[in-house]
Amino acid sequence: MSAPQPKSPPRLRTRLRLKADDKLILGPGRLQILRGVEETGSIAAAARTMGMSYRRAWLLIDDINHCFQQPLVESVSGGKRGGGAQVTELGKQVMTLYSDLLATTEAAIASHKDQLSALLAEPLPPS
Amino acid sequence: MSAPQPKSPPRLRTRLRLKADDKLILGPGRLQILRGVEETGSIAAAARTMGMSYRRAWLLIDDINHCFQQPLVESVSGGKRGGGAQVTELGKQVMTLYSDLLATTEAAIASHKDQLSALLAEPLPPS
Repeated sequence: MSAPQPKSPPRLRTRLRLKADDKLILGPGRLQILRGVEETGSIAAAARTMGMSYRRAWLLIDDINHCFQQPLVESVSGGKRGGGAQVTELGKQVMTLYSDLLATTEAAIASHKDQLSALLAEPLPPS
Repeated sequence: MSAPQPKSPPRLRTRLRLKADDKLILGPGRLQILRGVEETGSIAAAARTMGMSYRRAWLLIDDINHCFQQPLVESVSGGKRGGGAQVTELGKQVMTLYSDLLATTEAAIASHKDQLSALLAEPLPPS
């Protein structure tokens, strides 16, 4: 038997959402479903990778689409795959802006997070 | 009758939380209750300013206290006010670090937020 691995000290992770008029516009789940559609070309396949029902994924994408001046995801018909979905040019632009925003945030606050992480209790209380 | 004011276009607002091991450590509500205690010297008064029950505020602060190596809020007895609560030195340090982190984030991502805000639909779909 090997000795138990020492548990690494808790580290803070950032969760950043963008809201407008108290409505959620962009968050980690929304970025994930957009990336899923981009990678799989299908809302159903993107939903599966997130363990989400097709209906819930469709409603989520419909809401995302209506948050912007034009849809970020559109359906495509025909082709080898017999139809599916794809991220529009505007969708790619939004994904890039939001990804860059998240990366810029992480770079800007790394030192603050390190300093706060060093003050955390071990173990943390239950969620 | 004056003409209706044109509604200003929707603007994105940041919501940033810090989690560790999927547990919420710091977020807007936690900062607000700490500021309330600092300003009022009382958990009950801080709870009132947030429209929160005393019990809920007490449990929230108890959880915050156990997230860090030492409490961020401690009770004080005696004095003119007949006891109350105050933010500890560690509490002030955490509040300053987290406030600075939020301000640093806003400065770093202002341009990204402007660009994304310009792409939002008007009106936005309901929440």
